Amino acid sequence: MDFDLSSGIAVLHRTPWTVRTMLSGIPAAWTVANEGPDTWSPYDIVGHLIHGERTDWIPRAEIILAQGPNRRFTPFDRFAQFRESQGKSLEELLDEFARLRTENLTKLGEWRLTESQLALEGEHPELGAVTLRQTLASWVAHDLGHIAQIARVMAKQYREAIGPWRAYLTIVDR
Amino acid sequence: MDFDLSSGIAVLHRTPWTVRTMLSGIPAAWTVANEGPDTWSPYDIVGHLIHGERTDWIPRAEIILAQGPNRRFTPFDRFAQFRESQGKSLEELLDEFARLRTENLTKLGEWRLTESQLALEGEHPELGAVTLRQTLASWVAHDLGHIAQIARVMAKQYREAIGPWRAYLTIVDR
Repeated sequence: MDFDLSSGIAVLHRTPWTVRTMLSGIPAAWTVANEGPDTWSPYDIVGHLIHGERTDWIPRAEIILAQGPNRRFTPFDRFAQFRESQGKSLEELLDEFARLRTENLTKLGEWRLTESQLALEGEHPELGAVTLRQTLASWVAHDLGHIAQIARVMAKQYREAIGPWRAYLTIVDR
Repeated sequence: MDFDLSSGIAVLHRTPWTVRTMLSGIPAAWTVANEGPDTWSPYDIVGHLIHGERTDWIPRAEIILAQGPNRRFTPFDRFAQFRESQGKSLEELLDEFARLRTENLTKLGEWRLTESQLALEGEHPELGAVTLRQTLASWVAHDLGHIAQIARVMAKQYREAIGPWRAYLTIVDR
């Protein structure tokens, strides 16, 4: 599928509501559990999504659109959420994510991006040249990857509880 | 995590709303795409979840609770949705899934299951003896597996569109 701006935005718009539907009000045992040492809980993942709203996708799109002399992205901190989420409830994080996502999609809409703007390039510190189109498509795929991760982390908590069904429900061993 | 009835129901209750949030009103290109031959689209997955409500989890729980002479489950038809979803819109399927799930959770709540009932066994045609507790835990993990699948199938549509980001977004190659 080619990247289409309005079709991609349709997914980006839904993600905070999907994550909220999955997690809001659920027993905390589901939201604080992870997959083992150095893995993330649903709570951690929401914090990571928030950090992405603040520092990743739209800020990088702005670097690309500016086409200044330095188009190199600031490296993304994959562990910022362990610092920034401290003291915040899951409900606060869900609200913050929804608010930031709405702000970012408003900004994206106001840009009224053209095909030639979507073809502009920035420089990812590790991946090299990437276009704005590829960056926005990655924002969408990144959302979906973390929705899948939340579901997987939760499913894994029942690895033992499902008994013989484990042979069928391969998600608990992924 | 041990299976806990109210904690499991908290997930089961949310699944139709999660799936609806992800899929309702989104461009059809997202909902009809699959991962290649003999794989399922999000539309197919919703049909599969519906068939599970009709023939799998609660009907099997009823077989276990009845403790009749034959406790063997009817084999589940993994392809029923290709027949049963015919002619139905995605919105109709989302409504049907939500309605059936609500009916099934109402029934489950009315049973007021005891610990000893949760320990009763049925016979899975392939997996052998399974307890009611394991069956209900599997219903939860099965939901989460299919939420993860929907997200993965959608993410995979952008495998080419994300360009060099593919090195990071491993979900598109899973």
